[in-house]
Amino acid sequence: MDRQRGIDVLFNPKSIAVIGASEIKGKLGNDVVRNLIDSGFEGRIYPINPKSGEILNLKVYRSVSEVAGDIDVAVIVIPAKYVHPVVEECGKKGVTALVIITAGFKEIGHEGQEAEKRIVEIAEKYGMIVQGPNCLGIVNTFAPYNASFAAGTPEKGSVAFASQSGALMTGILDWSLMEKIGFSKFVSLGNKAQLDESDFIEAFGKDPDTSFLLLYIESVVDGRKFMDVCRKIAPHKPIYVVKSGVSTAGARAASSHTGSLAGSDTAYSVAFKQCGVIRADSMSELFDVANVFDDCYLPRGNRVAIVTNAGGPGIITTDACEANGLQMAQFSAATIETLKNGLPSAASVYNPVDALGTAQPDDYALCVEATLQDENVDSVLVLLTPQAMTKEAETAQVLVDCRKKYPNKPLLAVFMGGNSMTYARIVLNEGGIPVFDFPERAVNAIAELYRYIVLRNSLKDEMPPKFKAEKKRAKEIIESVRMDRRRVMLGSEAHEIAEAYGIPVARIRLATSAEEAKSIAAELGFPVVLKIASPDIVHKSDIGGIMIGLKSEEEVENGFLQILDNVRAHLPRAVVYGVDVQEMAEKGKELIIGCSRDIQFGPLIMFGAGGIFVNYLKDVSFRLAPMTRSDASDLIFETKMGTMLRGVRGEEPSDIDGIADTILRISQLVCDFEDIVELDINPLFAYEKGKGVSAVDVKITIGGE
Amino acid sequence: MDRQRGIDVLFNPKSIAVIGASEIKGKLGNDVVRNLIDSGFEGRIYPINPKSGEILNLKVYRSVSEVAGDIDVAVIVIPAKYVHPVVEECGKKGVTALVIITAGFKEIGHEGQEAEKRIVEIAEKYGMIVQGPNCLGIVNTFAPYNASFAAGTPEKGSVAFASQSGALMTGILDWSLMEKIGFSKFVSLGNKAQLDESDFIEAFGKDPDTSFLLLYIESVVDGRKFMDVCRKIAPHKPIYVVKSGVSTAGARAASSHTGSLAGSDTAYSVAFKQCGVIRADSMSELFDVANVFDDCYLPRGNRVAIVTNAGGPGIITTDACEANGLQMAQFSAATIETLKNGLPSAASVYNPVDALGTAQPDDYALCVEATLQDENVDSVLVLLTPQAMTKEAETAQVLVDCRKKYPNKPLLAVFMGGNSMTYARIVLNEGGIPVFDFPERAVNAIAELYRYIVLRNSLKDEMPPKFKAEKKRAKEIIESVRMDRRRVMLGSEAHEIAEAYGIPVARIRLATSAEEAKSIAAELGFPVVLKIASPDIVHKSDIGGIMIGLKSEEEVENGFLQILDNVRAHLPRAVVYGVDVQEMAEKGKELIIGCSRDIQFGPLIMFGAGGIFVNYLKDVSFRLAPMTRSDASDLIFETKMGTMLRGVRGEEPSDIDGIADTILRISQLVCDFEDIVELDINPLFAYEKGKGVSAVDVKITIGGE
Repeated sequence: MDRQRGIDVLFNPKSIAVIGASEIKGKLGNDVVRNLIDSGFEGRIYPINPKSGEILNLKVYRSVSEVAGDIDVAVIVIPAKYVHPVVEECGKKGVTALVIITAGFKEIGHEGQEAEKRIVEIAEKYGMIVQGPNCLGIVNTFAPYNASFAAGTPEKGSVAFASQSGALMTGILDWSLMEKIGFSKFVSLGNKAQLDESDFIEAFGKDPDTSFLLLYIESVVDGRKFMDVCRKIAPHKPIYVVKSGVSTAGARAASSHTGSLAGSDTAYSVAFKQCGVIRADSMSELFDVANVFDDCYLPRGNRVAIVTNAGGPGIITTDACEANGLQMAQFSAATIETLKNGLPSAASVYNPVDALGTAQPDDYALCVEATLQDENVDSVLVLLTPQAMTKEAETAQVLVDCRKKYPNKPLLAVFMGGNSMTYARIVLNEGGIPVFDFPERAVNAIAELYRYIVLRNSLKDEMPPKFKAEKKRAKEIIESVRMDRRRVMLGSEAHEIAEAYGIPVARIRLATSAEEAKSIAAELGFPVVLKIASPDIVHKSDIGGIMIGLKSEEEVENGFLQILDNVRAHLPRAVVYGVDVQEMAEKGKELIIGCSRDIQFGPLIMFGAGGIFVNYLKDVSFRLAPMTRSDASDLIFETKMGTMLRGVRGEEPSDIDGIADTILRISQLVCDFEDIVELDINPLFAYEKGKGVSAVDVKITIGGE
Repeated sequence: MDRQRGIDVLFNPKSIAVIGASEIKGKLGNDVVRNLIDSGFEGRIYPINPKSGEILNLKVYRSVSEVAGDIDVAVIVIPAKYVHPVVEECGKKGVTALVIITAGFKEIGHEGQEAEKRIVEIAEKYGMIVQGPNCLGIVNTFAPYNASFAAGTPEKGSVAFASQSGALMTGILDWSLMEKIGFSKFVSLGNKAQLDESDFIEAFGKDPDTSFLLLYIESVVDGRKFMDVCRKIAPHKPIYVVKSGVSTAGARAASSHTGSLAGSDTAYSVAFKQCGVIRADSMSELFDVANVFDDCYLPRGNRVAIVTNAGGPGIITTDACEANGLQMAQFSAATIETLKNGLPSAASVYNPVDALGTAQPDDYALCVEATLQDENVDSVLVLLTPQAMTKEAETAQVLVDCRKKYPNKPLLAVFMGGNSMTYARIVLNEGGIPVFDFPERAVNAIAELYRYIVLRNSLKDEMPPKFKAEKKRAKEIIESVRMDRRRVMLGSEAHEIAEAYGIPVARIRLATSAEEAKSIAAELGFPVVLKIASPDIVHKSDIGGIMIGLKSEEEVENGFLQILDNVRAHLPRAVVYGVDVQEMAEKGKELIIGCSRDIQFGPLIMFGAGGIFVNYLKDVSFRLAPMTRSDASDLIFETKMGTMLRGVRGEEPSDIDGIADTILRISQLVCDFEDIVELDINPLFAYEKGKGVSAVDVKITIGGE
């Protein structure tokens, strides 16, 4: 069965079997049955246990085959060694979806991994879908049903959550029950043997009960699929991800600039950006976002009104707004009039509104209603500190009433304090107002909502361009390098491949003798550059392997011999193919365009300030290929160099179209040839607008067989 | 009386009068008396009220003069208009310290400000110190006494807290009571009419009951005093500050690069850095730090052990450690052996230690004891997620026991979840273990502890160097510019001042005719540079006001005329003094050294990558003058340029001593002359080590009369 159709059934089953159901409290097989009953599941529940009898007043069947009716979903909680035959049996019975809670598979090593593969093979033979194994289960609060061993069922809400960590899920659930955050779906991904994050994201995208998607993942199973799915959903529903495992990936050996500048986690960040996914920095941020999304509509813009009963916290919050890219709303004349009439004269009626330490619930009502009604305000943040005359709980109730009256704008509360705020917090949580203890987290949550708005507006439905290229020629060169048992191309080869893809290059020819160098130089025209041609030498200039501006045959001859001497002195063991003779390109802005290859997401393109100091300046940015014209433009202008290319301090603008074209042609090249594992053009000289670019030094490394 | 001796009395009074004491519950004058009694103050309390009678069983006096005994501290809670005579009366009575809670002074405008000044005048006439007005009061938990109208008294602890916002203080107090965070002193600064943050910081520094200082401030009254005081204390006690009001300061008009690159808040950040104060980013961070400091000793290093019952949170925490500059501890063989023997075989005994979802309190005890004992571990972070077999409260108790046994290393807990963790959190708080809900905040708190260690070790007792300089010559030039009613110096003047302070400059002379230009050029030697000399033209190169590399008298003559033409074409109204003729310095690394002047902290020195793109590259850093050699070195190496100056990619290192000298000479110059409000040397060319530097373009602006 198609996975998505399978998930439809998994989300809304009419019957669920619990294989490994138990009558012993504390056993997972008991928890699952109890959760199914407690969550109000209205379909049939079939506890399966060889001992038969009754569990929680339900008849127990000895096996799924014993059940007369259809079984949509089978939840498996038996020990790992019994799982295979049970999966087979489920297949024969015609079960649609398996939720395998049982652990002891991929996570325990090779043997478990093999056993896990076998499960999927059997399941797919029968067209079943598989969630897990090694998972907590699944909850759909709208079915409703809870087929998990979690301690409780989340409240109904608009947020769908999928997590690669079951333990984290239990923590989040526990928390959400306290903070009254509602979820539509709650999915534990487990080992992702078959169904992965992308499958569930796709299903959440189509789910009418889900408005927001939250994910915790440690890795993505299929980078392309993930990006394709998210790209479709992000324009309609926000997707927030915490991706951990940043530090465990470790450093990769890399010989190119691009490889060494791309951190182990860069590809994930870039992939998220390119497919419209927002990456949260921490669990608490993810949680705050869930809290706000569950309660609030999206703001229309970034103009925040602050209402407070104390100056200090108002200032802190104003700072936090500015630091998070939010604007302090400028109130309309009507709002200011209302506030002036209603508040004591010492109050501040401009933003932040300071209703003074004596502020009563009525004062708060006045301020919050006025600001919620103001067209210049996109969201309202209410601060309360516990002062002598403060009525915490009544003020909370007033906010809840305001929210009911004006539900369209985000209304958030920061009630600063400890025990004296406890009851007020409950009132707010119950009343659908997200409440925070310190201003910065609340501001950050609003900023996250706004971040989605900006992101959504920037998403474009655009295809990568397709350039005419001599693919065959490039292929021949790669094959000849491979025949030669090399991985690093010679300069002449790399430049030829770039030329084959229409990239303007400084022409280059390999000379194996001083004589040959002289005649090539004459043919290319003086001045020329000489570079050592050796796959073993990466930083040629460091060892005197490059000479520039040679103006005569005599200089070329001397240069040829000098370079060979230098190389022999520094790296006597390097394999030398000769010396590349290259036309001397007119000097332009020094840029770098490079590519490394991410194991998960494929070709990762880098652009930035080039030259020999690229690793020190680190003014570079990244995108994954294939790239659209917008991607190329974003890539360029994310760097400081991008700003400078527009022409600053009276300089002429550079040929940005030419640069973008080069980036896009490289993107096409590395998508055409998976063999190309690393590529650097450094420098690429960019000239004034209309005058194009020139690739001065192209390096290409191909992958091993 | 000397302020510090006054504060000694204020911290430990034998008798306190409450002027404006009230018998009516809910009145501030009642709250203060009640807090004094409830906090266990053992000295004499004198309620003062014209009505006399009794308040809370204490005899009421009609005025301070009616009190027979001495009065150390008078707390004033009467309306503003009655304060002056009362202060006078207190003075006559011989009171040492006034705590003026009464509001309605500086914060209400000019009239209030004058009234406030008058208070200080009267007080100082009698040698009294003044806290406030418009403050919450003061608490010393060790006296003990609470002379504030806060709702409650903080617990006893080692953290001293001073706050410019009273409301914030009430919130923090309320919170601290819930989280069991203890304070030694709790001081509300109010309007800081006399005693300011520096006075209290100094007093906290000497206070034997205080180990850690926390501050919330919106501004500093005296920048120099603040830095001097903090510099003395920071090596012994950590000082953490939240400074708000970042966004309210607004942008300043600035004509120099330094002025435009220094944000309105830069001087505060730099001042904190230079005097050993750590700036917290948010209230929650400040609070978390207080929580940890109150409970834990400082760690010896940055090696963290993580103990968890779930993989996902372990990974998240590992990531957070790396992101915060902490290291994952590598356990000793003995620790690994202990863990292997004690935990199930599926557990992970390396860091993070995963004791599995089935982990019992005993398992936690084993892991936490082993890691606390390990010499390779500096602090231990314990994660708990609510799983089926998890015993939250018992695990909490086990941690408390471990802490008692091994109190020397920070032990922090993250118990993830909501209501199920409530009781466990209480156990941890009571047992002196800081507990967090999400891993990132806990990791950040450890990182903050470690940040102090690093900072403390970097503090050096070092004096700014003193160079021989021709101060008189510089003074004459400044005076002549002022006589000329100019604020922007001509190039020739600015270069002469730099020379007077021993800075190697490219020599420069002003030419008012082509003839003169030619003869100056001949004198300086070819090639030369010509630059328009006009106080109205800042970016000379943008309008063709600079010509370089002129090699003959003829070129100089043509250049002179060409520049005047260019200027007339672009800026016909600019006042032109002529054309500067300058030696052409050999090209070196392009740097910028500049100075702008902060209203609070004085001269702010900038260093970084120079040239015309300085505003786009933004590779600059800042320090306040006067600067030590260490400051200059830190300033240089905070920039990317600093790294490159060391010599990378086989380049010779630059003359870093020469650069540092130039920075220090500029520091001395701008300290000598407050008139210099802005200064840029851009570019400063730096040559190879031993070959010095050359200031190619020096710009100086002096302040108005």
